[in-house]
Amino acid sequence: MELTAIYKLVRGDLAQVERQIKSVTEVDFPGLAKLLKHILLGGKALRPALTLLSARFYDYNLDLLLPMATSVELMHTSTLVHDDAIDNSAMRRGRPTVNSLWGEDRAVLLGDYLFAKAGEFAALTGNLRVIRLFAQTLQIISSGELRQTFDAFNLEQSRQQYFERITGKTASLFALSTQSGAILSQAPEESIQALKRYGTNLGIAFQVVDDLLDFVGTEGDLGKPVGSDLSQGTLTLPAMLLLELSPKDNPVRELFSNPDMPEAARQEKIKRAIDMVGSSSVRAECYKVASDYCDKARRELESLPASPARKTLVEIADFVVSRKT
Amino acid sequence: MELTAIYKLVRGDLAQVERQIKSVTEVDFPGLAKLLKHILLGGKALRPALTLLSARFYDYNLDLLLPMATSVELMHTSTLVHDDAIDNSAMRRGRPTVNSLWGEDRAVLLGDYLFAKAGEFAALTGNLRVIRLFAQTLQIISSGELRQTFDAFNLEQSRQQYFERITGKTASLFALSTQSGAILSQAPEESIQALKRYGTNLGIAFQVVDDLLDFVGTEGDLGKPVGSDLSQGTLTLPAMLLLELSPKDNPVRELFSNPDMPEAARQEKIKRAIDMVGSSSVRAECYKVASDYCDKARRELESLPASPARKTLVEIADFVVSRKT
Repeated sequence: MELTAIYKLVRGDLAQVERQIKSVTEVDFPGLAKLLKHILLGGKALRPALTLLSARFYDYNLDLLLPMATSVELMHTSTLVHDDAIDNSAMRRGRPTVNSLWGEDRAVLLGDYLFAKAGEFAALTGNLRVIRLFAQTLQIISSGELRQTFDAFNLEQSRQQYFERITGKTASLFALSTQSGAILSQAPEESIQALKRYGTNLGIAFQVVDDLLDFVGTEGDLGKPVGSDLSQGTLTLPAMLLLELSPKDNPVRELFSNPDMPEAARQEKIKRAIDMVGSSSVRAECYKVASDYCDKARRELESLPASPARKTLVEIADFVVSRKT
Repeated sequence: MELTAIYKLVRGDLAQVERQIKSVTEVDFPGLAKLLKHILLGGKALRPALTLLSARFYDYNLDLLLPMATSVELMHTSTLVHDDAIDNSAMRRGRPTVNSLWGEDRAVLLGDYLFAKAGEFAALTGNLRVIRLFAQTLQIISSGELRQTFDAFNLEQSRQQYFERITGKTASLFALSTQSGAILSQAPEESIQALKRYGTNLGIAFQVVDDLLDFVGTEGDLGKPVGSDLSQGTLTLPAMLLLELSPKDNPVRELFSNPDMPEAARQEKIKRAIDMVGSSSVRAECYKVASDYCDKARRELESLPASPARKTLVEIADFVVSRKT
């Protein structure tokens, strides 16, 4: 199922979020406006959709939900801008990155600006619990990313470390998206917690698939080169499974043990790792892990009233595993 | 007068701010803890002092003021971390920068973490106006810094552009510091506005002196190399005045017209510009400009009740112009 079809229930409201995001680009400083326009186009709007849908069970007040849905999308965008700057990535969503067009320095400042803008939208909810969660989530994301830099090119990582890291860097924002929608709709505490856990498990599944697509996706679908994680020395689940499967003569081990090898050799190792993941059980195992997390996510919804919104959240969980981009 | 003497009135409360900041370094992630400890030591604590002193005129409630004073110091630190990363600066406060010790990538993420932490402390005030100002200030700072990157190596800049830029990148945080103290102490609106303007004018004066010290200070006093602004292509007031004074045969013009000149030639131009500023009327003119802004700042205080706090804010204005670091 396509996301556009899944979003049916909140399509009109997502269009309003899009208009709010467009309004962010309308600043009286041409240099900044150009950067904002470049980065704030496109995107799946998955996080704002989660905020809106998570609010559909109780008091759906758009005056509070629109700023929060805008906030989570802006926070997401700001983390992408900083990530790309840090990784020196050239492409994102099929377009050149901010850092590749305007330099890493401006990417850092643009990301800061977007964080601040996201914070301003969160503040517009007037809800202190949500505002505090917003600030805490940004701490969790940045310390998760920081952890990743300390773990780079380290082969001695446990699965637990991997799941902790992706919970921090990805699932925490999914959890903020769902939890804030629940809080702002005056949901009872147990529903807030159920939607938070739904978001966390969905986010973990999303990142596992993301990490797999970095091996088995196509550059055309992804809008960025495959094999980026290995290039950065980031040990993800597919690479971990590959190491377990072929402990000896393993291109991941060779690459991580010798991060300064010549570029041609690096590329050859990455290509071989991609081929091995594609032709082994690793792919199926990753999908199994992602599906299990999606099942967990779906089960959390059972405590909520049966409704079109609940059905849509189930469809999003299906989408997260089946997606190609 | 030394800052420690000036701070007498709020010394005990500043010690509490320091303890709160120290608590920020106590995280269960050794890599992050090391970075936080490195960066959160030292500093003049000028901004937290401004928050505390600005609150002394009305309802001085430490439960609200301590988190906010901590917040402005953390925000200040986060902008320093990102600035140093962007400028590739090696030294700050006489110590190696985060980027020079642990790389630009980690400096970006550490700055993000500190922004978020600052946001969390701002949220602890429970005051939505202050929280919104916090988020807006970060937008102003980052867009001011962004403007600086677009203006780099551009000789065609007006004084107005310069003052707008430093108002954004420096004075806005001074204004947040004073204004938030006033708001949190339930000051009447006219006092809030007076303290905001005091902060803005003080901040402009502070940055003018900062920009001058980059020419006439010593590396020992500053804890960082002199001439950094020229190296970065940042046209500050002293350089502008020098261009007016010696339109021809001007090292600033030569440097900015040819930013890719060999390193030795660059250093020679920078040295010559420093000598010219030191031996010309530029130094006195900059102090005159800074003093005028400090006078403006002091005049704003006249509408406030005469008190030890008001006297201290006057002394801070004196300090800002007389300081050597």
